[in-house]
Amino acid sequence: MSNGYFISFEGVDGSGKSTQISKLKEYLEESGYDVILSREPGGTRIGEQIRSVILDPANREMTAVTEALLYAASRAQHVHDVIAPAVKEGKIVICDRFVDSSIAYQQYGRGLGECVRIINGYAIDGWMPDLTFFLKVKPDIGEERIESREKDRIELEDMAFHEAVYRGYESLQEEFSDRIVGIDAARPVEEIFAEIKRYTDMLLKR
Amino acid sequence: MSNGYFISFEGVDGSGKSTQISKLKEYLEESGYDVILSREPGGTRIGEQIRSVILDPANREMTAVTEALLYAASRAQHVHDVIAPAVKEGKIVICDRFVDSSIAYQQYGRGLGECVRIINGYAIDGWMPDLTFFLKVKPDIGEERIESREKDRIELEDMAFHEAVYRGYESLQEEFSDRIVGIDAARPVEEIFAEIKRYTDMLLKR
Repeated sequence: MSNGYFISFEGVDGSGKSTQISKLKEYLEESGYDVILSREPGGTRIGEQIRSVILDPANREMTAVTEALLYAASRAQHVHDVIAPAVKEGKIVICDRFVDSSIAYQQYGRGLGECVRIINGYAIDGWMPDLTFFLKVKPDIGEERIESREKDRIELEDMAFHEAVYRGYESLQEEFSDRIVGIDAARPVEEIFAEIKRYTDMLLKR
Repeated sequence: MSNGYFISFEGVDGSGKSTQISKLKEYLEESGYDVILSREPGGTRIGEQIRSVILDPANREMTAVTEALLYAASRAQHVHDVIAPAVKEGKIVICDRFVDSSIAYQQYGRGLGECVRIINGYAIDGWMPDLTFFLKVKPDIGEERIESREKDRIELEDMAFHEAVYRGYESLQEEFSDRIVGIDAARPVEEIFAEIKRYTDMLLKR
C-alpha cells in the first residue's frame, strides 16, 4: 500500500513538537528524502476551515461530540488529500498531531469513550503512522512554556483536562508500544533530537 | 424524556419544505403552541459555521466521509443546544432536515453505507423526530423549481446523485413507516398542507 513513511508527533501544548519536527525535516532532507510537513486539525484547505471552527475561543459552548466529529472530519480530508498520496509517492510525511490526539483529548480528556475510536476509524481509512513520537512534558510545564502565546479554545481548558489528556497519552503509549515512542522532552533540544533521529533511522532502515 | 414534540421535514431541494414549514408554524401558533423553527445543517451559532464549510461551492474537493462527519457535527450541537432543551420545555420543534437527510444524501447519494448511521447515532444522542414529512417531489421537478436560486455545493451535484438521494428517501419511508409520512408534494400548496395538518393533529392528540 505504501512506499513512503508517515511519522506523527504527539504531546501536550508546549511539549516542543514544532522544534523537533523542523529539526527532523531538515535532517531527512539532508539525507535526500522528500519530506512533507503537515498538521492537525487542518493540513488541507477544507481542514483549515474546520480548524478555525474547532479552535476559535468564542466557540466555548461546543459539545464534546461536535468537537470529536470536527476533528475527524478534518482528518478524513487530510488523509485523502495529503497523507495517502504523499506516502504512496514515496515521500515522508511528518505530522504535528494525528489520531492519537483525538483519543487523548476527546476520549480521555473529554471522557467520550470508545466512540472516538469508531468515528476516527472512518476518517483514517486504514492509514496509521509508522512511528509516533510522544514528547513527554507534563501539562503544567507545557503551559509555562506557552504562557506568552495567544491561546486557542483547547489550550484554554483547565489543568484537570490537560492532565487527563496526558494520562490518555500514557495509556496509548502502553497500548501501542510498538508504534509510539515516549521521549523525555524536558531535556535539552539536542538530546531529545538525538533520540528522535535514532528511532527514525531505525524505521528507515528496516 | 420529552413533553413537547419534534417534527422534521425532508425531501429534495425544491420540494416546498419552507412553504409548508411556515404554514405549519402559523397553524400551531394559532392553536396556542410554542413553536421553534430550525434547520440543518446549522440551527446553532457553531452549526452555522459548519454549514458554511459544508455548502460552500468552492469546497468541491470535500470527501464523502468529511461531509458526513461535518453534517453529524452540526447535528450534535443542534440537538444539544436547540432540539433537546425545547422539547423538554414542552415546545414543538419543526426542523427543516434532520438525520434522514444524512442517510438519504450520504449513505444513499454518496454510497457511504452503514457508517452514516453509526456516526449519526453519536450525534443525535437518542433524539429522533416524533413525525417526519417526506415531501415527495422528484429531483428533476425540484430542480426546475429552484432554477433561479444561487445553488450551494450539494444542489450543484448532478441528477444521478439527486435521484439516488430520492431513492434513499423512499427506502427510509418504507423502513420507518410509523414515523415517516410520504406526502405527494406535486399538488397545490393548500392540498399538501391539509394533509400535513391532519397528520400533525393526530400526533398532538395521541
